[in-house]
Amino acid sequence: MHGWTGNMAIVDLSDERITVKKIDDQILQDYVGGRGLGVKIYFDLITPNIDPFSPENVLVFAVGPLTGVAPMSGRHVVVSKSPLTDTIFDSNAGGFWGKELHYAGFDALVIKGEADEPRYLRISDGEIALEDATSLWGLNVDEVTGKLQKYGSVACIGRAGEKGVLYANIMNDLTHTAGRGGLGAIMGKKKLKGIVVQGTQKPEIADLEAYKVALKEMVRLLEASPPVNKGLRVFGTSMLYDIVNYLEVMPTNNYQRSHFEGGSQLSGDYIIEHYSIESHGCWGCPINCKKRDKERGIELPEYETIWAFGPNLENGDYEKIVEANVKCNRYGLDTITAGSTIALYREITGEDYLDRIQEIGEGKVLTEGARIVAMKHNATKKSMDIKGLELPGYDPRGLYGQALSYATSNRGGCHLRAYLVAPEIIGKPKLIHRLNPADKPGLVVIFQNLSAAVDSLVLCKFTTFAMGEVEYSKLLSAVTGVHYRSEDILRFGERIYNLERLFNVQAGIGGEEDTLPPRIFEGENALSREIFQEMLREYYEFRGWKDGIPTDETLRKLGISQ
Amino acid sequence: MHGWTGNMAIVDLSDERITVKKIDDQILQDYVGGRGLGVKIYFDLITPNIDPFSPENVLVFAVGPLTGVAPMSGRHVVVSKSPLTDTIFDSNAGGFWGKELHYAGFDALVIKGEADEPRYLRISDGEIALEDATSLWGLNVDEVTGKLQKYGSVACIGRAGEKGVLYANIMNDLTHTAGRGGLGAIMGKKKLKGIVVQGTQKPEIADLEAYKVALKEMVRLLEASPPVNKGLRVFGTSMLYDIVNYLEVMPTNNYQRSHFEGGSQLSGDYIIEHYSIESHGCWGCPINCKKRDKERGIELPEYETIWAFGPNLENGDYEKIVEANVKCNRYGLDTITAGSTIALYREITGEDYLDRIQEIGEGKVLTEGARIVAMKHNATKKSMDIKGLELPGYDPRGLYGQALSYATSNRGGCHLRAYLVAPEIIGKPKLIHRLNPADKPGLVVIFQNLSAAVDSLVLCKFTTFAMGEVEYSKLLSAVTGVHYRSEDILRFGERIYNLERLFNVQAGIGGEEDTLPPRIFEGENALSREIFQEMLREYYEFRGWKDGIPTDETLRKLGISQ
Repeated sequence: MHGWTGNMAIVDLSDERITVKKIDDQILQDYVGGRGLGVKIYFDLITPNIDPFSPENVLVFAVGPLTGVAPMSGRHVVVSKSPLTDTIFDSNAGGFWGKELHYAGFDALVIKGEADEPRYLRISDGEIALEDATSLWGLNVDEVTGKLQKYGSVACIGRAGEKGVLYANIMNDLTHTAGRGGLGAIMGKKKLKGIVVQGTQKPEIADLEAYKVALKEMVRLLEASPPVNKGLRVFGTSMLYDIVNYLEVMPTNNYQRSHFEGGSQLSGDYIIEHYSIESHGCWGCPINCKKRDKERGIELPEYETIWAFGPNLENGDYEKIVEANVKCNRYGLDTITAGSTIALYREITGEDYLDRIQEIGEGKVLTEGARIVAMKHNATKKSMDIKGLELPGYDPRGLYGQALSYATSNRGGCHLRAYLVAPEIIGKPKLIHRLNPADKPGLVVIFQNLSAAVDSLVLCKFTTFAMGEVEYSKLLSAVTGVHYRSEDILRFGERIYNLERLFNVQAGIGGEEDTLPPRIFEGENALSREIFQEMLREYYEFRGWKDGIPTDETLRKLGISQ
Repeated sequence: MHGWTGNMAIVDLSDERITVKKIDDQILQDYVGGRGLGVKIYFDLITPNIDPFSPENVLVFAVGPLTGVAPMSGRHVVVSKSPLTDTIFDSNAGGFWGKELHYAGFDALVIKGEADEPRYLRISDGEIALEDATSLWGLNVDEVTGKLQKYGSVACIGRAGEKGVLYANIMNDLTHTAGRGGLGAIMGKKKLKGIVVQGTQKPEIADLEAYKVALKEMVRLLEASPPVNKGLRVFGTSMLYDIVNYLEVMPTNNYQRSHFEGGSQLSGDYIIEHYSIESHGCWGCPINCKKRDKERGIELPEYETIWAFGPNLENGDYEKIVEANVKCNRYGLDTITAGSTIALYREITGEDYLDRIQEIGEGKVLTEGARIVAMKHNATKKSMDIKGLELPGYDPRGLYGQALSYATSNRGGCHLRAYLVAPEIIGKPKLIHRLNPADKPGLVVIFQNLSAAVDSLVLCKFTTFAMGEVEYSKLLSAVTGVHYRSEDILRFGERIYNLERLFNVQAGIGGEEDTLPPRIFEGENALSREIFQEMLREYYEFRGWKDGIPTDETLRKLGISQ
């Protein structure tokens, strides 16, 4: 077997013991890498009812056999139980850090225990050392990165992670984000400020000839795909703004409306006309979807952030969003949850924290996300979360696939656990009907399985604008030397999805939380509860789940032992 | 408006009157061309309960605004009521004939009445003349083409059409086929032997700059798509043989099994290794999926023909299939219906007509297709037809999308009315799960609407391996100057599909014929009737049909007046 290093490093912060273990070949073949491998390792180590902040909880960092090998593979995954959602949680980041870990000789890195004093971890090829981080404690992401980057690629937390903000990110390479469920707060609780990695050993490819053919196919498909070569390359994800608003699925003012009138500054066209744009991206990326303002050298926000701090707060001032985004990156804050929590609080109290995000980063206000903030204000119906994770910027009332995928996501209100933005909004790989419930149950299952697979290779989800299971299977087979058929890609994705679900069920989170916020079922453009329930019923049926719980037979077929 | 000529020629064979009419702009915009325009013109001219062979029946030949303009547009459509199925029927042919008709200044050509003596029609730019065809009567396709091709591109019938074989094709450019429902027999009944066309006026493009951009996108996507650049270009449709057999959806021995063991000669690999292949194709095609044997200069069979005369007759001798195919092309016989009818007769009697196809072409035996042959032998359960049209070579027992699309096709057992071979077998634009009923109702509707749209542009269905609604809308808008959004592509497809259905309903063919042959629901690998009925129920619901009949509201929304 090639591509995999087969190594897992385990760092215990309590007693500072560092060990390296071999990972079972069968686990690598069945769960591949990244999200799949991380979830499997986590599942095998942890009791589901664990408190996310307890020293016994672990963080698993994982890469896949394609990481640092194929184009668009500069990604890694962090898995733990989220303090925001209490579900199993995989957080997916781009950048350079994953490639360094892979080249340092590891498929996975497990962080356990809790340090007495601040520490950072330094990995240089096979060598791993815990270092004193007292002087780094209290610094933000830009400062920590500045101090450590001489040793390699830096993943770290800012002050938000130290302060236990429930949506603190782990940031790497300054602006890349392992975002959403607050795994940065777990790092903070463990007093691990950062992990700096440098690696020099590129994994070998099993069948170089087959790889070259697969690579050529991949590059040709990417270069031919208009959303890639015209959209992401030019505008980044801000390309989405106009079409989402045009389709009237732009959540506005905490989801009270679905269209924003004051956003002329927020469209991709406006931005590239008014800013001097410099593109950059992750390791080995031919697209470079990230954009920065060349003159000021500051990062420009992604679509989700534009939405969260724009329409969702009825704000049409782009510069305010740029500023809020810079702050979130420095403190290490998730912009979707930040925007959604601010929007909720604004709806309840009229007070807007958009200009005062540093107060959140400092752990002073709104640190617990929308669900808990709403509970405290006796306004649970106004929180736009699922399983504790706030919804992103695509209104499920006008996107039935998103609706079902949000509701059934193992980590809560997430657009990336089945990347239906591609077929429902962009029309890739195929335009589907947004308001047709008749194909959604099956498609959501397929896209969830595919997303789990892509997150495990690891490749960027934007490859789905151009590639499909056929191409993924060829790349993976060529690199590893293990034969994967196109249907195997969906199959191991299904295995991962079921294992995650099993963890949640054992943690007490079953089908009753597979739903949407009440607001989605109310008002003028409400999603019908009957339609939703019927989609959900069919979804469970095809998943082989009863009331949201995988049956023994389903688990057995997938080779999952409980 | 550009792209359309706006002209329809009407040729009355009874009194030899030839008139040219303008087509209403709104009809062109709403039904676009090809299949849509042909169906609309036919619907407005004909009473649904007409006898297909009566002089009052008409044949409509139609092209679309892209015909002869964009690559892969060398296609035309023939519409009438089929004598084989008694449904409305659109027959779709490649080649050069459509481009010539468009360049001659016509979007549509209507043939009505019945000649006393054999005639052929000659069109040269705007000039149209009926000519004596006495000396051509009794000749086969190769002979007629040889005699008329000096005047242009030749569409004609062979002896099968003259003899009224219910699955006689209209052949054009020697080996291109307006196949399936026996529209060639209608031409024969009308004593019209052929139509030869020459045109020199290329339609103007409304927005040349936008067209160039859309064209570049189309070419890049096609060149990047592996099923196009590696599959069709090298193997032609014979690329399908191995994968269909591997997936065990290869109907064998009149659908009594789903896997064929003796087909080592029938795979694309075998064929390109053992024959000296010459590729050719339709007008303006960058793929050239048709293959001929260079040494002998004879056409090699398509996948459907390989299946129909191979596995379906338990025949593994490729040369026998080549020979049968050549005969079918000469006589003008549909190979799927021929193979299926021979398979049925073989099952009932043990007698195999594979080597005696000329007897069918001469109108002596098995001329009525499987359904009627089975009725005459008291073996209706053994006929593998839907609405009278025999199933093609993809077993619906292992392909739930195909199952539903076959059953609900307006022309009967057809794989091209929703080209699900692409997603269910090839994995383009996206691999879907073959045995998952949960996404099929919605997807079948979308793919049926898309197929109707592509048949109306007119483009080749193989463009769907690479292009989607976004690219189609850009091409169509650029050529015509009428703004079509991507969702409009599916919308006019839906309009066409409903108009066809309305015709069938008025002709007495409603939801009760939306089913599959009994054999599909029986035996070891049977499709469950419950699953099928549930898919059908949901399909109707999403179509806005009651018991298979479009509701008044559905028709009103689509702008169809009854």
